[in-house]
Amino acid sequence: MANSKYEYVRQFERENRLLPDIWLVVRIDGQGFHKFSAAHNFEKPNDIRALQLMNHCAQKVFDHIADIRLAYGESDEYSFVFRKNSTYYNRRECKLISSVVSLFTSCYVLYWSQYFPDQALKYPPSFDGRVVCYPCDKHLRDYLNWRQVDCHINNLYNTTFWALVKSGKTETEAEETLRGTFSADKNEILFSQFGTNYNNLPPIFRKGSIILQDFVEVESNDKHGNPVVKRKKKTVVIHEDLIKQKFWNQRSFLLDP
Amino acid sequence: MANSKYEYVRQFERENRLLPDIWLVVRIDGQGFHKFSAAHNFEKPNDIRALQLMNHCAQKVFDHIADIRLAYGESDEYSFVFRKNSTYYNRRECKLISSVVSLFTSCYVLYWSQYFPDQALKYPPSFDGRVVCYPCDKHLRDYLNWRQVDCHINNLYNTTFWALVKSGKTETEAEETLRGTFSADKNEILFSQFGTNYNNLPPIFRKGSIILQDFVEVESNDKHGNPVVKRKKKTVVIHEDLIKQKFWNQRSFLLDP
Amino acid sequence: MANSKYEYVRQFERENRLLPDIWLVVRIDGQGFHKFSAAHNFEKPNDIRALQLMNHCAQKVFDHIADIRLAYGESDEYSFVFRKNSTYYNRRECKLISSVVSLFTSCYVLYWSQYFPDQALKYPPSFDGRVVCYPCDKHLRDYLNWRQVDCHINNLYNTTFWALVKSGKTETEAEETLRGTFSADKNEILFSQFGTNYNNLPPIFRKGSIILQDFVEVESNDKHGNPVVKRKKKTVVIHEDLIKQKFWNQRSFLLDP
Amino acid sequence: MANSKYEYVRQFERENRLLPDIWLVVRIDGQGFHKFSAAHNFEKPNDIRALQLMNHCAQKVFDHIADIRLAYGESDEYSFVFRKNSTYYNRRECKLISSVVSLFTSCYVLYWSQYFPDQALKYPPSFDGRVVCYPCDKHLRDYLNWRQVDCHINNLYNTTFWALVKSGKTETEAEETLRGTFSADKNEILFSQFGTNYNNLPPIFRKGSIILQDFVEVESNDKHGNPVVKRKKKTVVIHEDLIKQKFWNQRSFLLDP
Repeated sequence: MANSKYEYVRQFERENRLLPDIWLVVRIDGQGFHKFSAAHNFEKPNDIRALQLMNHCAQKVFDHIADIRLAYGESDEYSFVFRKNSTYYNRRECKLISSVVSLFTSCYVLYWSQYFPDQALKYPPSFDGRVVCYPCDKHLRDYLNWRQVDCHINNLYNTTFWALVKSGKTETEAEETLRGTFSADKNEILFSQFGTNYNNLPPIFRKGSIILQDFVEVESNDKHGNPVVKRKKKTVVIHEDLIKQKFWNQRSFLLDP
Repeated sequence: MANSKYEYVRQFERENRLLPDIWLVVRIDGQGFHKFSAAHNFEKPNDIRALQLMNHCAQKVFDHIADIRLAYGESDEYSFVFRKNSTYYNRRECKLISSVVSLFTSCYVLYWSQYFPDQALKYPPSFDGRVVCYPCDKHLRDYLNWRQVDCHINNLYNTTFWALVKSGKTETEAEETLRGTFSADKNEILFSQFGTNYNNLPPIFRKGSIILQDFVEVESNDKHGNPVVKRKKKTVVIHEDLIKQKFWNQRSFLLDP
Repeated sequence: MANSKYEYVRQFERENRLLPDIWLVVRIDGQGFHKFSAAHNFEKPNDIRALQLMNHCAQKVFDHIADIRLAYGESDEYSFVFRKNSTYYNRRECKLISSVVSLFTSCYVLYWSQYFPDQALKYPPSFDGRVVCYPCDKHLRDYLNWRQVDCHINNLYNTTFWALVKSGKTETEAEETLRGTFSADKNEILFSQFGTNYNNLPPIFRKGSIILQDFVEVESNDKHGNPVVKRKKKTVVIHEDLIKQKFWNQRSFLLDP
Repeated sequence: MANSKYEYVRQFERENRLLPDIWLVVRIDGQGFHKFSAAHNFEKPNDIRALQLMNHCAQKVFDHIADIRLAYGESDEYSFVFRKNSTYYNRRECKLISSVVSLFTSCYVLYWSQYFPDQALKYPPSFDGRVVCYPCDKHLRDYLNWRQVDCHINNLYNTTFWALVKSGKTETEAEETLRGTFSADKNEILFSQFGTNYNNLPPIFRKGSIILQDFVEVESNDKHGNPVVKRKKKTVVIHEDLIKQKFWNQRSFLLDP
């Protein structure tokens, strides 16, 4: 239909098909989430409800698009790793970005009330997206390492910052206290002033969230009523250190083409 | 922060900056809306609530992004025309697409209950997006003409098809009746069999929806209590024929750089 | 042929098709021509043989590719303007660039001896190329204006610089003399110190070279032996001011789609 | 200089920087070489002078651009492999293509008379170029395999075809004889009808040409006049089978990043 004399304008459409056989990472980021989190009273330094909502949405995207091998999230961002030889939407850049960003946003609004039952959304939140190509496994792992290091550095800073503020300092004073400090300094402040051992904080805050299909042990009964344990593939959300080689040794399938 | 040894992976990011001084049209489309409209019992051939929800979302996007000069919507799609010399997000393709598609989706879910108070969303709807560059005013107008002709052709077909089905034909029979027919034939079927004058149907169905800033007459009282009429710029949603030159003569500002 | 199991590697090839209905300008530039011109004893500030060789090559390219509407050259660069609706090589960027740059280079070496009969090429000269898209006639004209202004500014500087050097100054002294001077100052130096009226210098140096098809008057005899003058289209190389409106008024066909 | 009000037109220039850390292959192809080889009386099925001229040009390009790791040529085409982490011209696509294609063309014309001393060029030859990105070593090797298989298939066909023609068949008859034949059939025709063992033909025809830096043994005398053999790195042109693993085992440096 619409086979009109105006249809020639379709010739102006351009498609960027991303290279075949290369890792694709779609990363989405909250737009203006500094303001959004303030307007919706997110707890500082981390709001567990907001993180769980992010994980819920990411899991929906993960389950919807079979070609996503792994997802990693921290704060208001999430990265989705498509397998190297995915042909999802023929690897068209705009389709990949807009599909992921739209479905994620849709879930964020739809499932908001499950995590924030006491307050309605004051205005529509939104996310932007991009896709990055990584030729080798090493690049992909370094990308994920980069995001997990980012999570750690931000979280350590924010945890210390808000501890100082909650203890009575102004935000400006807290900033000055932390200027030029190293990780060890912040750990020390947390421990000596607030009795907090940073490494005992919840892993979701320190490590971010990883979504993947993993084998889990499922217990059931056999026909004689005896308990049996089976290994079954299931989408899981975990909060491990993915920088270590061990993580990948245990899940070699992640890097299979 | 996150100035780690892994940060080199940012070098793999690519930005496509669209040519300066050229019309940009971001078009979003519902993904799988055939299934979505069935699952949510949209009325056939047109569901006025669904169209008004689309218009609500598009108006939010229009008001949020000052560089959008005009928007045109029909069915489950909407086109947003950015002024030629817009530097929104430095004309970065991914940012433009993801921002529009995400905000639109967010609004769709957030305002859903205003238009469908009786039924909750069964699953998260999503949209994809693209951006197209048009060098000249003629191309831009032909693009909009293309979409409005598409609206007309689809609506005339669907109106006749559903009239036949509601009158007792099966969907297959209705399809066969319409195969190979011209517009005049469908108009004739509607008039002779169903007493419907197609041109009297609501313009929102026949012409789609146009969002723009227009001068409207606002009535108020002066300090003596006498009624005065002022012309004020305001976002409006109209359902006119934009193929005709008259539409553009009345709004020459639309094509200003 | 070569339908082997390795042929899948073609899937990695990417084509950038430039937008339809937009001006395309392919510009080529000599690579390392500072060194090349020194090695081949080009006269300073302008070597008429080198410029005529450039024009010869550009005319070959112009005549070979029917879709080139106009070419403009100065120094060791040449710009080729393809008509807006050209479908040459399906507007594939790499094909456009490599075809023009290769044919130009080939001519440069092949016709070298016609302009430099006394010296052989010491090593193979080369050019690089790019293509730029200009949506509107105004952009295209401003592009050409930009290059012609560049020609003028460089030529005025070089003419004055080499006059100073030839009169006995060192190159460093000449540079210092010219630092911070305006056009009027350089004109004055040329006139007062060297008796040179800049505007009387050959137009090829001051204005560069323009290649186009123009109507020229061709004289012949009719069957009675009487002289007749006919207007005929012919490729010409001219050295006019293309910034002035008059240039375009006389050749309105240049901007026709 | 040329800092004029027209300089804004530079904003329309676009650069495509190819992904980092990925193999780049620039391939050039003769344009219209069917006609060119006929016009210059190339011998059939292979003209050794033409192939050696190609190799001469390719070696000049290889020696000029340090980042080229290997080059492979057959017939009127040549592929240049840049090392994965090359930053030549900042990996700008147009610069890479135009530099290689221009230098190659320049050499072709400049060195023509060394290989064809008896006939001048009738018109300027030209080449087009493209660049292709290959993420993994496997892709790169399969690319080279693809070209070498192409060389073999074409050469076997052409060798048989021209043997038939030289023996008295018309070109049409030769074509018909070869239609649908497999390699074994063509080998058999060559052997039984023309006493030619295909595998004894010169490797340059059967395998194409590979340019690389290899260790060669150089004989000289030490200070006592005794002959010594040293291994030295040198650009060489070889005609080996690069599909076999052995080729790469002997030259593992080729795939080093």
